[in-house]
Amino acid sequence: MKRAIDLNCDLGESYGIYSLGEDDGVMPLITSANIACGFHAGDYNVLARTVRKAVRHNTAIGAHPGLPDLQGFGRRQMDVSANDVYNMTLYQIGAVQAFAHSENVRAEHVKPHGALYNMAAKDRAIADAVAEAVKTADSSLILFGLYGSELTAAGQSIGLSVANEVFADRTYRADGSLTPRSHADALIEDPEKAAERIMRMLTESKTVTADGADIAIEADTICIHGDGPNALLFAQKLHDTLLARGVEIKKAGDIHD
Amino acid sequence: MKRAIDLNCDLGESYGIYSLGEDDGVMPLITSANIACGFHAGDYNVLARTVRKAVRHNTAIGAHPGLPDLQGFGRRQMDVSANDVYNMTLYQIGAVQAFAHSENVRAEHVKPHGALYNMAAKDRAIADAVAEAVKTADSSLILFGLYGSELTAAGQSIGLSVANEVFADRTYRADGSLTPRSHADALIEDPEKAAERIMRMLTESKTVTADGADIAIEADTICIHGDGPNALLFAQKLHDTLLARGVEIKKAGDIHD
Amino acid sequence: MKRAIDLNCDLGESYGIYSLGEDDGVMPLITSANIACGFHAGDYNVLARTVRKAVRHNTAIGAHPGLPDLQGFGRRQMDVSANDVYNMTLYQIGAVQAFAHSENVRAEHVKPHGALYNMAAKDRAIADAVAEAVKTADSSLILFGLYGSELTAAGQSIGLSVANEVFADRTYRADGSLTPRSHADALIEDPEKAAERIMRMLTESKTVTADGADIAIEADTICIHGDGPNALLFAQKLHDTLLARGVEIKKAGDIHD
Amino acid sequence: MKRAIDLNCDLGESYGIYSLGEDDGVMPLITSANIACGFHAGDYNVLARTVRKAVRHNTAIGAHPGLPDLQGFGRRQMDVSANDVYNMTLYQIGAVQAFAHSENVRAEHVKPHGALYNMAAKDRAIADAVAEAVKTADSSLILFGLYGSELTAAGQSIGLSVANEVFADRTYRADGSLTPRSHADALIEDPEKAAERIMRMLTESKTVTADGADIAIEADTICIHGDGPNALLFAQKLHDTLLARGVEIKKAGDIHD
Repeated sequence: MKRAIDLNCDLGESYGIYSLGEDDGVMPLITSANIACGFHAGDYNVLARTVRKAVRHNTAIGAHPGLPDLQGFGRRQMDVSANDVYNMTLYQIGAVQAFAHSENVRAEHVKPHGALYNMAAKDRAIADAVAEAVKTADSSLILFGLYGSELTAAGQSIGLSVANEVFADRTYRADGSLTPRSHADALIEDPEKAAERIMRMLTESKTVTADGADIAIEADTICIHGDGPNALLFAQKLHDTLLARGVEIKKAGDIHD
Repeated sequence: MKRAIDLNCDLGESYGIYSLGEDDGVMPLITSANIACGFHAGDYNVLARTVRKAVRHNTAIGAHPGLPDLQGFGRRQMDVSANDVYNMTLYQIGAVQAFAHSENVRAEHVKPHGALYNMAAKDRAIADAVAEAVKTADSSLILFGLYGSELTAAGQSIGLSVANEVFADRTYRADGSLTPRSHADALIEDPEKAAERIMRMLTESKTVTADGADIAIEADTICIHGDGPNALLFAQKLHDTLLARGVEIKKAGDIHD
Repeated sequence: MKRAIDLNCDLGESYGIYSLGEDDGVMPLITSANIACGFHAGDYNVLARTVRKAVRHNTAIGAHPGLPDLQGFGRRQMDVSANDVYNMTLYQIGAVQAFAHSENVRAEHVKPHGALYNMAAKDRAIADAVAEAVKTADSSLILFGLYGSELTAAGQSIGLSVANEVFADRTYRADGSLTPRSHADALIEDPEKAAERIMRMLTESKTVTADGADIAIEADTICIHGDGPNALLFAQKLHDTLLARGVEIKKAGDIHD
Repeated sequence: MKRAIDLNCDLGESYGIYSLGEDDGVMPLITSANIACGFHAGDYNVLARTVRKAVRHNTAIGAHPGLPDLQGFGRRQMDVSANDVYNMTLYQIGAVQAFAHSENVRAEHVKPHGALYNMAAKDRAIADAVAEAVKTADSSLILFGLYGSELTAAGQSIGLSVANEVFADRTYRADGSLTPRSHADALIEDPEKAAERIMRMLTESKTVTADGADIAIEADTICIHGDGPNALLFAQKLHDTLLARGVEIKKAGDIHD
């Protein structure tokens, strides 16, 4: 049974004059910041600011590489090769590493963004490319991926530390995938309920699907959303409830079963 | 008196389907490759290929950061702040470092590109920003800049190793600047003559201006052009002539007066 | 004496996932929408939506071309040639014309954005390039430019209709330029006072500078800001006050002295 | 039986400093220029030059809209919606129309590029979006698409003139699709043979597949390639051979069965 979990959030997704996300509000609540690298979002100025902000809050700095598609926010699948993915991932990690280094810290993890995350979850060649790029950049980086995905499998197979990501505010289906947002029962809006689900993942390594069946699940890190005031309130309550139930909130790298 | 010099060239400036420069021809002739980082030119795939090519030829890998202006090839001055320049330089160095690291080598130098190079030559705040970013990324990086410029001054003032760059195929003016290409006597097309000029820079630390007067100059590295077959022929002859005259051609970091 | 004025605002400056400006709030208050064209801001989806919105409110559709610099929001001066400016302006107008045509209306005006507006105000070659592109695209387009600028002069010299733009919420200097925002007396925050100033421009063709002297000024269109709730409130009050004082608020093309 | 055909080629695909294609060589051989619009390739300066070049040669000007993916040259499929496609197509046509108008001509046709062409060939929703955008921009525009594709069907269903595109240098499969380039018998390298195939398409509306069976085909326009000296030589010989066999080479809009 686990008594600790990591909370991660995508941050640094503003761009130029455009502001996105409640970075200031969410940063104190989380332990791992997935920082956009300038491809799907973010730019070098935003990246610099976000890394400094993470350091001030002792939040783990992670690269959040995405497809080269600012207009689509990296959410549109593109027909990229595994070699493209390897190179774009390595490039983006390198940029984040430079800013981490400038603050005398190291990047601690990598979580792909949007379509790249989804492609890597299902396509082993893409997953391998991401994992190899992470290992090449720094073999001590922790790879964040969906529990049960090709991405976490790819990371494990080459010896990377992997953090299984779960969603506190989403329901699961029998195959371990998330219920699509279009379904009525896709979302869990009560932070108490969400915390209870996380508790069960930690203690029993199980969760109940939208259909009522139990599936196996491992939770190392919870994805927190930082868009909009409701997301922030949910995150705050989830954070407090987990603490109240005796769960430690720690960086993925500091959790040892 | 110096008996050795570095030859550098801007490489990796292709982009996607677009091919630019005679990288394969020039790589064996030079000792330092300034590799485009994806802002003014280059992309992550080109960067990966070019770093591997440099490693195969034992050519020093350098970052060649530019303004974020692919359409203008980084040649258009833009009204960017010193903070912008610091962050864009650090970002681009970080990307190159990651690819160098993937080949088990280190980036050894940084040379800004085009408008950024020219702005940093004359504007001390921009020069300081470039130099600080270089030092932050890796204080052992050698900063390449125009001899007598604000950029080399900025690098020296914070303790960076600096390589004074000279142009073998261009004439100089009394203030140490290059004669603009629009002038009749701007170019030196005979590689023999060019080699002679370099010899004098090495032995006397002097060169003659287009007006016939002597000025002081220090030559640590010569800028070689890799565009077009003539440039390549010129580079080859210059390279051979220097060797024939007893000048060693070495990486900037391996030259010790 | 004039009894009518146009109110214009920059709109359609969102991009992909990024939202900017209070377009829905400001659209009913204005008579001319300057719609971003995808270079400094906006994209084809935002452009399509914004043109439709303008048509619904019977607001004149204008192209708002900018420098090709999304990251800098078109606010950074770039060293572009007059030929570049001609082509980038014509390109952007063409895109807006296509969407106007799709809604069975015509683009009625052009107002350059940010650095392009400022460059065209002072540099006659840039101003001529903008004006020529406007005339080429459609000689019935009205060119919006700062009163007394090279841009309005360039437009007039080739026979374009020109709308002199004034700022209700900014003070002027003796040379007709705006007092920089860094000065204490740069802004006029009281919409009553702003309306009074506009009244005097209309009735006397004069305004008082921050130093207390009178200068000549012609006001055909007032620039309204759509960023932030205060800007919207100011715009609403200015709009209402002008109406209350008997000033008609009309499209620039419908005002005839 | 037809006695005339159009020859089309993708042109204006250079970008900034990057040069691509043998535009000057191919322009005199063709009757329809598909001009890149700045999304997958081209920029406003290249577009201006290419439109002028087409006008000088009396070549029909067409828009060649592509996906917003310069790095991938518009060849990577992206998960774009039909609404995205409608708007990106209309935007790009508008830009080309403005430059055609500046030369006192009209754009005469539209041919989507690369992945957009392929997606529109198979996906009716995408095809409808392209066709609707073309019709909205100018209902007299001719839509170029692969013979037998969803794109030509979509164009015909809303009353657009459609030009069936065929490939002289490629073999076909039983379903009317092109034999993939990876197959040994994909290419036809002899311009005599290619011309013979075109003759049969014109006279019998048939062609023989790589497997030896006959399929129905209509040829209104032949795609000519302008990349590389061999392509140019092939184009020249095909052009001359067709003329020698009594086939007129005419703009698609001037051919009437």
